[in-house]
Amino acid sequence: MEGEPTRIMLAVNQSTIKGYPHASISSSRAFEWTLQKIVRSNTSGFKFLFLHVQVPDEDGFDDVDSIFASPDDFKDLKQRDNARGLQLLEFFVNRCHEIGVACEAWLKKGDPTEVICLEVKRVQPDFLVVGSRGIGRFKRVFVGTVSEFCAKHAECPVITVKRTVDETPEDHVDD
Amino acid sequence: MEGEPTRIMLAVNQSTIKGYPHASISSSRAFEWTLQKIVRSNTSGFKFLFLHVQVPDEDGFDDVDSIFASPDDFKDLKQRDNARGLQLLEFFVNRCHEIGVACEAWLKKGDPTEVICLEVKRVQPDFLVVGSRGIGRFKRVFVGTVSEFCAKHAECPVITVKRTVDETPEDHVDD
Repeated sequence: MEGEPTRIMLAVNQSTIKGYPHASISSSRAFEWTLQKIVRSNTSGFKFLFLHVQVPDEDGFDDVDSIFASPDDFKDLKQRDNARGLQLLEFFVNRCHEIGVACEAWLKKGDPTEVICLEVKRVQPDFLVVGSRGIGRFKRVFVGTVSEFCAKHAECPVITVKRTVDETPEDHVDD
Repeated sequence: MEGEPTRIMLAVNQSTIKGYPHASISSSRAFEWTLQKIVRSNTSGFKFLFLHVQVPDEDGFDDVDSIFASPDDFKDLKQRDNARGLQLLEFFVNRCHEIGVACEAWLKKGDPTEVICLEVKRVQPDFLVVGSRGIGRFKRVFVGTVSEFCAKHAECPVITVKRTVDETPEDHVDD
């Protein structure tokens, strides 16, 4: 029954509390859950595909007070953003390396929901894992959730993993 | 990383085309997919929990032309319904036995969406797998889908597995 490993795409993002390079609680949770409940001891049977989608606006926000005097300043900014995203991916790649599970990781920019679905189409993983903050019905109206959109629109099976109660910060929007 | 096996609940139903004891295309697909992509060769790492929810109205429909002359006739009917449901479960239990994966299977009556979510609460599987006909947006309005409801409301991670294109009957509502 072995052969080609099962390719698991995992969409990861940074913590809204600690920022880069820290992974969000829901990303870490989704990853650890997948290792524990699906990969288990069968490390050669699976391959992780980590995708981090950077939201251009969100990143730009930190740079409101920066001064841009030349085209190179923008180039530097772009490089710094990339570096931050790569540091996030490094966390997951290192963890896989420790455990001995194959992986690949890459960065994209854009709207996470749209990019994740496009990347699923392009890369065709066996399934997609997305972490979810598991916020309530009321808040969801305003916040929107990437996980719900992907579960509906991604062209592969999708598993949504919520944070546990004891991992959830006081403000549910934090991650 | 081993220890207690990962408990996978799988909600299964009968074929709308062939009736009992045949499993629906989407149930079979969800099961085979889980074996192939998640269980793989690690048969001792997983345990299947098969739940079949019988819809009382749906079963009664076959008996429109039956004559009920005594309370025992109703009892017979109920026993026959149970027997049909058990035959469906037998298919999945046999398949697990062949492969060497542990399993349990049981019947419930009621509204599938509601009963599945209640059983998840009671049994607390590691995750739930539901098959889906994968019907389009337009038809979904009228048909409703058990998979969508469970993905939203079940208190565990849920993975929805759609039928493949070549398995899908001409009328998408058939299963």
